[in-house]
Amino acid sequence: MIDHSRLSTEPFPGSEKRYLTGERFPEIRVPVRAIKLSPTLEAFGGVTRTLPNPDLLVPDTSGPYTDPAAQIDLQRGLPHARPWLARADNTEPTPRFSALADMDGPLPYPNVLTPRRARAGRHITQMQAARRGEITPEMEFVAVRENLRQAARLEGGDNDLLQHPGESFGASLPHVYTPEFVRDEVARGRAVIPANINHPELEPTIIGRNFRVKINANLGTSIVTSSIEEEVEKMVWATRWGADTVMDLSTGRHIHQTREWIVRGSPVPIGTVPIYQALEKVDGKAEELTWEVYRDTLIEQAEQGVDYFTIHAGVRLAHIPLTARRRTGIVSRGGSILAKWCLAHHQENFLYTRFSEICEIMAAYDVTFSLGDGLRPGSIQDANDAAQFAELDTLGELTRVAWEHGVQTMIEGPGHVPMQLIRENMTRQLDVCAEAPFYTLGPLTTDIAPGYDHITSAIGAAQIAWYGTAMLCYVTPKEHLGLPDKQDVRDGVMTYKIAAHAADLAKGHPGAQARDNALSKARFEFRWQDQFNLALDPEKARSFHDETLPADAAKTAHFCSMCGPHFCSMKLSHDIRAADVLAGLQEKAREFKELGSEIYVEGADD
Amino acid sequence: MIDHSRLSTEPFPGSEKRYLTGERFPEIRVPVRAIKLSPTLEAFGGVTRTLPNPDLLVPDTSGPYTDPAAQIDLQRGLPHARPWLARADNTEPTPRFSALADMDGPLPYPNVLTPRRARAGRHITQMQAARRGEITPEMEFVAVRENLRQAARLEGGDNDLLQHPGESFGASLPHVYTPEFVRDEVARGRAVIPANINHPELEPTIIGRNFRVKINANLGTSIVTSSIEEEVEKMVWATRWGADTVMDLSTGRHIHQTREWIVRGSPVPIGTVPIYQALEKVDGKAEELTWEVYRDTLIEQAEQGVDYFTIHAGVRLAHIPLTARRRTGIVSRGGSILAKWCLAHHQENFLYTRFSEICEIMAAYDVTFSLGDGLRPGSIQDANDAAQFAELDTLGELTRVAWEHGVQTMIEGPGHVPMQLIRENMTRQLDVCAEAPFYTLGPLTTDIAPGYDHITSAIGAAQIAWYGTAMLCYVTPKEHLGLPDKQDVRDGVMTYKIAAHAADLAKGHPGAQARDNALSKARFEFRWQDQFNLALDPEKARSFHDETLPADAAKTAHFCSMCGPHFCSMKLSHDIRAADVLAGLQEKAREFKELGSEIYVEGADD
Repeated sequence: MIDHSRLSTEPFPGSEKRYLTGERFPEIRVPVRAIKLSPTLEAFGGVTRTLPNPDLLVPDTSGPYTDPAAQIDLQRGLPHARPWLARADNTEPTPRFSALADMDGPLPYPNVLTPRRARAGRHITQMQAARRGEITPEMEFVAVRENLRQAARLEGGDNDLLQHPGESFGASLPHVYTPEFVRDEVARGRAVIPANINHPELEPTIIGRNFRVKINANLGTSIVTSSIEEEVEKMVWATRWGADTVMDLSTGRHIHQTREWIVRGSPVPIGTVPIYQALEKVDGKAEELTWEVYRDTLIEQAEQGVDYFTIHAGVRLAHIPLTARRRTGIVSRGGSILAKWCLAHHQENFLYTRFSEICEIMAAYDVTFSLGDGLRPGSIQDANDAAQFAELDTLGELTRVAWEHGVQTMIEGPGHVPMQLIRENMTRQLDVCAEAPFYTLGPLTTDIAPGYDHITSAIGAAQIAWYGTAMLCYVTPKEHLGLPDKQDVRDGVMTYKIAAHAADLAKGHPGAQARDNALSKARFEFRWQDQFNLALDPEKARSFHDETLPADAAKTAHFCSMCGPHFCSMKLSHDIRAADVLAGLQEKAREFKELGSEIYVEGADD
Repeated sequence: MIDHSRLSTEPFPGSEKRYLTGERFPEIRVPVRAIKLSPTLEAFGGVTRTLPNPDLLVPDTSGPYTDPAAQIDLQRGLPHARPWLARADNTEPTPRFSALADMDGPLPYPNVLTPRRARAGRHITQMQAARRGEITPEMEFVAVRENLRQAARLEGGDNDLLQHPGESFGASLPHVYTPEFVRDEVARGRAVIPANINHPELEPTIIGRNFRVKINANLGTSIVTSSIEEEVEKMVWATRWGADTVMDLSTGRHIHQTREWIVRGSPVPIGTVPIYQALEKVDGKAEELTWEVYRDTLIEQAEQGVDYFTIHAGVRLAHIPLTARRRTGIVSRGGSILAKWCLAHHQENFLYTRFSEICEIMAAYDVTFSLGDGLRPGSIQDANDAAQFAELDTLGELTRVAWEHGVQTMIEGPGHVPMQLIRENMTRQLDVCAEAPFYTLGPLTTDIAPGYDHITSAIGAAQIAWYGTAMLCYVTPKEHLGLPDKQDVRDGVMTYKIAAHAADLAKGHPGAQARDNALSKARFEFRWQDQFNLALDPEKARSFHDETLPADAAKTAHFCSMCGPHFCSMKLSHDIRAADVLAGLQEKAREFKELGSEIYVEGADD
């Protein structure tokens, strides 16, 4: 049994969960968090005016867990956010491929769904639908979800939506996200909506260069530590803090059961690396892997509802010698397993030779490819080397094959890369992979700070996302040292929300700056509660403030412990703005203008 | 009394403190930390060879505190690292300007030094010396300190010094740092050596675009919290973790005494913002500030040995109206104090009108200017606005005046800036201020993450340092929320060491990659202790690893808890490299080559 009391279900402070609906599909319920703000008090000539501040709408990945109205019972799975899947006539129920796997382990899932797959000859992927001009409920869902700016505009004034023009390096962000824009991006492969038809609990999201930058959180059991319950808890925790997708990287025992609990409880897309489970089936002996074992694993996982698979089909036999002189060899687990297989058999990677067959399985459930970078650099010195780019070329080739099969595809990227070499990764990927979404791990910009690799990598992640990466895989402080615990997951997610948001601002994602504006306004007006509630991590912001000034009165005080009351620049700024002072200013401005001060003219004109 | 037992004096694990000497000035003792490494064990054909790894030399800012041979007695101050100052014939002892200030407070410093100043008509600053072609002991000191690469090369093999070419955006980093190179950079104002002649305890450092990026840690009492003892403790703590300079931003009471203890105990340059103390002298009433009060404060602090002063002379009356429509007004404490003074008197900023007189005081003690950016943006929306750039233009004008007086000068920069606007800050500063070193606070790349602003700002700091910023002022997790405690100081310093090092790698600072290479090599060879010892924060790296695998045996294990033994890609990489496998590979390589595989050819040639 999963202990529900350990799941984090507290609503966010000062916030309200709302659902936006579609115009084409009134059935869709797009979750959003509305942060409620207190009014601005404006003193002017002895009179105080109260000016209301509109609610700020922000993306919400936390699913029903933070909805006080939701009944959470993980024994039954989350409520189905996509009820239309069960009614689809281009798919059909199918007997479970391996019911045996469901039972093997300490915590069998009590309410296994009957899986569905495409009817013979029917093309059911989002990409196939998009190509035939069809707008799916998922497409409208993600359009509404990206489009919070418009919703915010409806609720508030335009004033708070001011933002600097972005520099998007050739991306084409629209002013408003429409379902048709989404369809077009999916059709041309520039964005993916990972949404397995066997994951009805999913609230869909879109991953592409012309959308908000997304982040992924990794979790999963290892043979050394952790349990199913802990990983479910971490999944809920990661989505609470803002993970747009979650990868279950479980290894060791009971992988199948762990995943079932995670998928049934997850409001976000789940990714896996199927080779891990396949390897367990052959007792950890890479050389004993076979296509049949791997294929069956893909089908089992597709039936469970995994939304995207990392598949290391680009690790070709011919690339392996290119890694021989590296400082850190092959650092991808999947990559090293396959390299070992290739060498043991002196044969080409079977994921490469069987790639079309893999595509057919993916297409039958609409599982999205995340083509793995098994040869990514694991150290600064190995960045951008021949092995890495040879594999990238192969991934470009495979992208086209996947697209021929109508399979949605994204491409995984490095790794460890010093700043001056980051841009080349993005430029090459866009070129070689025809703008298929890039999904990178970091990159870490130095090797010298184990224990702080969430930070070494956030520096690189913000840059590569600005250049065009669509999704960032988080790195936690435990990277290179151990399995992350809940605190590490939170730190990793927060750090990557920052990197992704910094990139959204820099690219000019429409409306990205609204939250910055609202928070800075609250800060300047000493609305401390609003400042906390608008923060990515309201709990931490409040607790840091309260360490030195815990009293309630300090929540409206015109200073904090950082500078104290006499040195608060914001307080002084308010004094400067006070009406009588401003009057004097205008007087002075006139004088200066008459004297011909160039600098002054600009300001005095206002 | 300062409680010495609370100072952090533990030597770093696996490390040895050494001193390098000069060729021109054998008297100088440049501190360096040598990290001792265990050998590489190479198994080949059943035989294991032991290959020694050379000591890695890394910069050491921690002063005598981490030297087991040093006797620390803060009642007497640190040993004098610059004994030549007392013998200089171009300076002379001078009666203490305000002995009264020394006595006012709870903890009078017991061994006040007799201050020195330039003899009448003598030009004593590093800049003046450099211009007349003179190489000072300080110049050789910093050349040796920057040049660890060469030292490392002497001790080790060249192999570990491989690094990627940098992209320096027009900076001119040399291959080897010579005293003459340093002299030339100081003469043309492109670098500063903040080194007040009344700070003999100082181990000099250099700040300039063509040198290793430096970081500053802020600390200081506030009226709300903290004590002299705590701030001394934080200063020692900050330098332990790598702060290249420390700013004492004390406000409230006993500023003078706090500073005396800090300067006497500091091996790194100390900066202050003299307006804070001046304001205390007029009971916090900005409008009552006078030139005389401020001037006296400058002299008192110069006599104490403060190495650089932040002076907000660029906040001109004419700029203030430009801030009226900002989202967050004026967010610099100094800036807002001076703005308030200007408005109260309807007069130009007296720091601007008295700038030449200030220069004369600075030159008499060789205090370096840090021209403050009192109008820096305090929110994303206010970035790169007219107020900010108007002030920058004034700072450029003042730089030239300072240089005429032979005063070393650096320029402070923002603040809050979204990524796409960061570059313009650097480009303009280099242009307007004739390459005087830029010293920036972050910049923060988003406003939405109070509690994590060390990270929002490290993203911006790494970028602006790459573009050419010479020193980064750290931001701690408590920014905007409260006064940092010791943990915050450590987090802030570590985060900024990462940003600075990432920039050094990207710019191509000679030898910067040596530590990355050594750490990655240790990681790949499962030399866990070496990996910890090479880390920026050895304690944290070790403790994270030990959370799940505390046993001593795990320190040599070929896996960690992250992936467990079966999935360790590094272990698999070693298997792949094993001799027999490689033999097969070479065979295969030949076959492939005959088949004409293009990709293969490259690797197979090796």
